[in-house]
Amino acid sequence: MIDLRVNEARLWSRIQEMAKHGATPAGGCNRQALTDEDKAGRELFIRWCKAADLDVRIDGIGNIFARRAGRSATGAILTGSHLDTQPSGGKYDGILGVLAGLEVCESLNDQGIETEFPVELVVWTNEEGCRFHTAMMGSAVWAGAMPLEAAYALCDSSGASVREELIRIDQLGIDSVLTSDIAAAFELHIEQGPVLEAEQLEVGVVIGVQHMSRHRIVITGKEAHAGPTPMTERLDPMRALADFLPRLYAMAEAHGPDARITFGFIEAAPGSNNTVPGMLTLTVDIRHPERDHYEAMVGEAYQIIGEACDTQGLPVLIEEFWKADGVSFDQECIAAVTGAVDLLEYTAKPMVSGAGHDACHVASVCPTSMIFIPCEGGLSHNEAESITQTQASIGANVLLHAMLKRATLVPSSKD
Amino acid sequence: MIDLRVNEARLWSRIQEMAKHGATPAGGCNRQALTDEDKAGRELFIRWCKAADLDVRIDGIGNIFARRAGRSATGAILTGSHLDTQPSGGKYDGILGVLAGLEVCESLNDQGIETEFPVELVVWTNEEGCRFHTAMMGSAVWAGAMPLEAAYALCDSSGASVREELIRIDQLGIDSVLTSDIAAAFELHIEQGPVLEAEQLEVGVVIGVQHMSRHRIVITGKEAHAGPTPMTERLDPMRALADFLPRLYAMAEAHGPDARITFGFIEAAPGSNNTVPGMLTLTVDIRHPERDHYEAMVGEAYQIIGEACDTQGLPVLIEEFWKADGVSFDQECIAAVTGAVDLLEYTAKPMVSGAGHDACHVASVCPTSMIFIPCEGGLSHNEAESITQTQASIGANVLLHAMLKRATLVPSSKD
Repeated sequence: MIDLRVNEARLWSRIQEMAKHGATPAGGCNRQALTDEDKAGRELFIRWCKAADLDVRIDGIGNIFARRAGRSATGAILTGSHLDTQPSGGKYDGILGVLAGLEVCESLNDQGIETEFPVELVVWTNEEGCRFHTAMMGSAVWAGAMPLEAAYALCDSSGASVREELIRIDQLGIDSVLTSDIAAAFELHIEQGPVLEAEQLEVGVVIGVQHMSRHRIVITGKEAHAGPTPMTERLDPMRALADFLPRLYAMAEAHGPDARITFGFIEAAPGSNNTVPGMLTLTVDIRHPERDHYEAMVGEAYQIIGEACDTQGLPVLIEEFWKADGVSFDQECIAAVTGAVDLLEYTAKPMVSGAGHDACHVASVCPTSMIFIPCEGGLSHNEAESITQTQASIGANVLLHAMLKRATLVPSSKD
Repeated sequence: MIDLRVNEARLWSRIQEMAKHGATPAGGCNRQALTDEDKAGRELFIRWCKAADLDVRIDGIGNIFARRAGRSATGAILTGSHLDTQPSGGKYDGILGVLAGLEVCESLNDQGIETEFPVELVVWTNEEGCRFHTAMMGSAVWAGAMPLEAAYALCDSSGASVREELIRIDQLGIDSVLTSDIAAAFELHIEQGPVLEAEQLEVGVVIGVQHMSRHRIVITGKEAHAGPTPMTERLDPMRALADFLPRLYAMAEAHGPDARITFGFIEAAPGSNNTVPGMLTLTVDIRHPERDHYEAMVGEAYQIIGEACDTQGLPVLIEEFWKADGVSFDQECIAAVTGAVDLLEYTAKPMVSGAGHDACHVASVCPTSMIFIPCEGGLSHNEAESITQTQASIGANVLLHAMLKRATLVPSSKD
């Protein structure tokens, strides 16, 4: 089994084939959850799974499961990720993990290897959370962290609900969610950060995930004409922003190099260029791998924003609309990944993920860990997201051997 | 003639009647230029003019002219303003000036007063510049400050052009623009600022208008995932904003209490809450009554923004997309307004307008000045914009007597 490797060319060609659905002119992908493009990508994936003799089922939130049978009917080893992308996303974020999982099944098929426990491949619905504003939605429902009905009720900006869109693209499954017979799980993903590339390492052995949350800030001002209204008489939300924005960046810096603060959305209403805004809405995403620092950052951010708005006499509402607790992955799963890395003689280091992943929800159900490979310039959520064929296959080989080593026994008579 | 006053109740009732077109639930108006609501408002105005025996013509950019004949066929005295509003505008900004002008004609009719020179009433097209992004468009075309074809080609956010919309609402006139026979002009307007109210004055004698311009700032960043990308590796436009925004407010403050700086529009793209924005667009509106200060403000703003973006390594484009030079109004017109205020024994003071008005363009064609009345809290461009019936009639009475005094001779045999 030491010589076993995935079919690098097949994996790469499938990644490129999948990228045609929602392809953007700049070479990226716009395949947001439950769109026509997502439907086409899902259908392609299901065709591949069926051709590989996997047993395909779709659950009530559209998660696709594809099982390669083992000798035992239970105790499956799960792997997978997501096929949806950001509006101007890349070809690899999520897709690599799904298609590397498929490649694990195909490679076992190619060698006629029978496993003791089933291999369960999964595509999670709406991991990105950009069209429907809950990231990792499908895995959250599966793990019981989000009620199915709450996920169904989420609407996109046009008012279309998750349930309506699942029905529309024919991906609302009839199977109930299956969690009970999963023994362990692994997720391969691109790093989405520049660390592995900078340190010229081939693999990241992911030991956990940062604490993270997103907050919506809504500041109420008073619309007024840009000319006649003296500056001192204004209720101007942009002036509060001018106060708290630099202080928030400074606050994050004070919490060290692992702290992250991101303002991804900002909009002034009514948005007329000669009217003081009556309302300013922005979001802040706060992350830190250490709980103490993370909690202090959130507390300080609320205080800084509150003070700045108070100073300007502006009412402000700040609400946390999404949160993911940090996760420490399972030691045995981590050991399985480290073992695979050692066996394959790749260079690697343990690291904490700065991004949330479906594996965070999976980790609440069964022993779980993750594998990272580098991506060019650490870029993701970007059409320029890039990895090489070799990097993809390194990740898939680690996934293959971690799954075989940690959990999927291979009691071949030849061993 | 000293006893002559407008019909206060009629003026007030017409203002309220006009406000029904585009009325908003919060008591304001959304009657943006060349919409169905604007069409309805224009048609109502034209009906009133015809009932008052005024000669109505529409020019090539949709400006409506309504003339009350004088003994002389030329040398008309012009008055008017605009009927269009901001998306969440009020009932009085522009409308007061139009309907007070109509009231001047009606009052002369009521008393059977014949004037030496004609009274020309005007409604300017698209003063607000919110739907089609050029404020004071109709008066600019009339005064030759903007080519007719350039105005026709302006499009709203849905791609509809000014010319298409003029045709659609049946307001594309066949008369060529008429400027040659106008001898003088007056415009009555609400102050749109808090000064008159704060000083408990009834009338503002407007001696000029601030220098002002609007600039679009487009900062290019690099989209990146909010989690894994270290702060030091980001190309984050919001970080440049955090640097220059407080400095711009401080810069404006350093130019004294007459300086104005307003950020009415801001938007991050792609606007995903877990992605560092790849682009940030905002507008800045800069005003000052003194040319030296105004020009220094613009120069300093460009420098501050450029430096902040340089520091972050971010490309930035800043372009002036609208400008209106400050205006000094005609001394004889100002004297006519002052004379009317004295005659009517109102309290008043000379002031500089902080907002641009159609009168700025008109002033390039003929002797011009403006009259302000206070509005509640100085609020405008706001659904809560408010004046009293008495305030409206004070303004209309000053307009009436300024027009009679400065220009419209009344050589009645009884005088």
